[in-house]
Amino acid sequence: MPDAESPVSETPSSAPGSDGFFRSRWVSVPDAVVGVASRGLPRGFRAAGVAAGIKASGQPDVALLVCDAPDAVSAARFTTSSVASAPVVLTRDEGRTDGLRAVVITSGNANAGTGRGGLVAARRVRADAAAAVDLPEDRIAVCGTGVIGVPLPVDVVAAGLGTAAEELSPAGDDDFRRGIETTDLFPKVASLTVRLSGGEVTLHAVAKGAGMIEPRFATMLCFVTTDARLDAATADRLLGAGVAGSFDRISVDGQLSTSDTAVLIASGASGVAVDPGTADERAFAAALHALLDQLALLIVADGEGARRVGRVTVRGGRPADREAVARQVANSPLVKTALYGGDPNWGRIAQAVGAAVPGPRSVPFAIRIAGVEVCRDAEEVPFDRAALVAAVQAPEVDYEIDLAPARADESPAVVHFSDLGHEYVTVNAEYTT
Amino acid sequence: MPDAESPVSETPSSAPGSDGFFRSRWVSVPDAVVGVASRGLPRGFRAAGVAAGIKASGQPDVALLVCDAPDAVSAARFTTSSVASAPVVLTRDEGRTDGLRAVVITSGNANAGTGRGGLVAARRVRADAAAAVDLPEDRIAVCGTGVIGVPLPVDVVAAGLGTAAEELSPAGDDDFRRGIETTDLFPKVASLTVRLSGGEVTLHAVAKGAGMIEPRFATMLCFVTTDARLDAATADRLLGAGVAGSFDRISVDGQLSTSDTAVLIASGASGVAVDPGTADERAFAAALHALLDQLALLIVADGEGARRVGRVTVRGGRPADREAVARQVANSPLVKTALYGGDPNWGRIAQAVGAAVPGPRSVPFAIRIAGVEVCRDAEEVPFDRAALVAAVQAPEVDYEIDLAPARADESPAVVHFSDLGHEYVTVNAEYTT
Repeated sequence: MPDAESPVSETPSSAPGSDGFFRSRWVSVPDAVVGVASRGLPRGFRAAGVAAGIKASGQPDVALLVCDAPDAVSAARFTTSSVASAPVVLTRDEGRTDGLRAVVITSGNANAGTGRGGLVAARRVRADAAAAVDLPEDRIAVCGTGVIGVPLPVDVVAAGLGTAAEELSPAGDDDFRRGIETTDLFPKVASLTVRLSGGEVTLHAVAKGAGMIEPRFATMLCFVTTDARLDAATADRLLGAGVAGSFDRISVDGQLSTSDTAVLIASGASGVAVDPGTADERAFAAALHALLDQLALLIVADGEGARRVGRVTVRGGRPADREAVARQVANSPLVKTALYGGDPNWGRIAQAVGAAVPGPRSVPFAIRIAGVEVCRDAEEVPFDRAALVAAVQAPEVDYEIDLAPARADESPAVVHFSDLGHEYVTVNAEYTT
Repeated sequence: MPDAESPVSETPSSAPGSDGFFRSRWVSVPDAVVGVASRGLPRGFRAAGVAAGIKASGQPDVALLVCDAPDAVSAARFTTSSVASAPVVLTRDEGRTDGLRAVVITSGNANAGTGRGGLVAARRVRADAAAAVDLPEDRIAVCGTGVIGVPLPVDVVAAGLGTAAEELSPAGDDDFRRGIETTDLFPKVASLTVRLSGGEVTLHAVAKGAGMIEPRFATMLCFVTTDARLDAATADRLLGAGVAGSFDRISVDGQLSTSDTAVLIASGASGVAVDPGTADERAFAAALHALLDQLALLIVADGEGARRVGRVTVRGGRPADREAVARQVANSPLVKTALYGGDPNWGRIAQAVGAAVPGPRSVPFAIRIAGVEVCRDAEEVPFDRAALVAAVQAPEVDYEIDLAPARADESPAVVHFSDLGHEYVTVNAEYTT
């Protein structure tokens, strides 16, 4: 039975008319969000997605997003891998990341592991896109996802870019989404209407990323657009905090892509300002964070056809220990296989705690699974095993760890993670180059 | 085709009469090893293993090892987990680890995750063993492996200990081995004859550990005995270096047991001294290291019925980067599933390099798989894919990574690892508490 002290709610939170997007009980929808739809770009944006011929499947593989506002501001975040793809290196090191006005994405080929030739190819794509949409090259972000180590077919991309530029449309968001996906099993997109003091703004985000399914390894891409008016510093701060609380807090298998990129562009076309330090900024930030949180959870849920998603919450102890324990649990193949198997195995959680906080001094800790205390002072406590086994069959399973000393005033470390099952092995082992 | 510069030998090294023990091509047998057998305790030792009733299967589950030499010296190493089992805490914190004369092991129950009651139980086992073999309690190491979170049935163990003490025999090594195993699929044991300047000595070691098969999580135990005469400081140094080069350089799934323990006891009964700083010490150390290396590889090979074993060797760059890259590759589920699938996928190796060495500065690197260069300057180089696919079907697969700058004079970082396949998921997910 759920512990009375547990903050876990069993009731999914979903806004009226949420269109099924806010489906995790771990995401609460801020009051400022007055509409949730699966379609609808903000004012000032056009998008397109075309099948250029990168993907053998014939699916859309070149996507283009353009902001028509000359004074648009932007922010971006990239993978921390030192083996970054050519598009990441180009955009990060040679782009105006605070003033991006377009994004071009190739899917099916990441242009990673392609050396100096890859950088030449990324520059060519950027130049072609600049010509096609009549913007300076440094205002264009380039992204890639798909196989690595294979030279990008730049002529194929160029032809696709030409078509995409012709097809750019305010209603092109669905084609754009399909153009960035690889092996995603379901769309990861929402268009929120956010009520601010100056009026309503639209906040749209689309993400791709499905764990390790794409032949070599996964990439997380996310593109956020809004017609709110932000200054560049605010955009950077909001995106940074949003990514840190969402895409940086998930693990499919602890691996790090060469290509992860998140971009936010604000057109300002609504005329509604989000000024720093205001209640409007807090409301906008809350909506953005809820949006990114749910997208991140969808990425986890799509990881290798995962059966269920876990959330580990670590409280107490030292901040570095909290973080280490949360990451260790989220990345433990023993914990992940137990989640897959629907096994409330607290010994594996204890193992991860001990590994994350090494040393001869025992750390007192307590563990709750699905709200049920199963271990206190590193020892099993009596619980209703049959009820707990039933509880961990749910699509979302909570793991809570309290480290000593308890520190109620400090924020917990939270990581969301997918399970590890036969689908993961099948997808990642039975593909042969 | 293997690169001409590659140090990899395709020829298994095996000593004459090696009885199949030295089966890895990565272990070379030192000249001082003049005999390899699967049985034969050194002089001065007796052992036993009995079925006390811990294991439902009726297999042996209480094992006892005693050294009859009053002046025996010993050394020990333990898990670095802060969630250490009660036997580890007791032996490590309250044992004379430089003068151990007996080891008692329970298998089927690790006495871990059992809190204060577990420590009381471990003390009871140690006291019962001390009485049974007539030795001081602090001369007795206690070890456990098996389920965690379940109280140890101390009366069952006590009865088994009484029987085991009666059955102690110089020929009891095989019963002892069976008494420490849990789900090991094959024995991990050898008795070496080592020729030193003063005569021949016997060096015996037995290990258990089969990855994550035991219901909760794996434990590595290793017991080394010899009739050579060592001082305690030498024993400690030799065991420490041996463990650091073997059991600390393997990964089944990056998890850390609560219970890992390695013990070395030297009876001195041969009368042949191994004095520090001598050629004899170097010869003895080489034999010990080869023995522990091969045992460690057998543990990896037994992990979840692994199809094959990988070895990652990282050269060049900074020492901390070498180590981080080797660990990241060895623990990467993407690399491990590719090993399982027989897929020479260098993109996954590149991904692990980038994750292990984060930051915006690209690290130049080269990758060889099974001796074939596949990537240089972070870019694919032409190679015979069909030949390489055939090569990675072998039971042992080499992954070599050169980081820039090349540093030929420094030792590489080496880690051995198992693959990740359906058996792992089956064993770890389909067990339900």
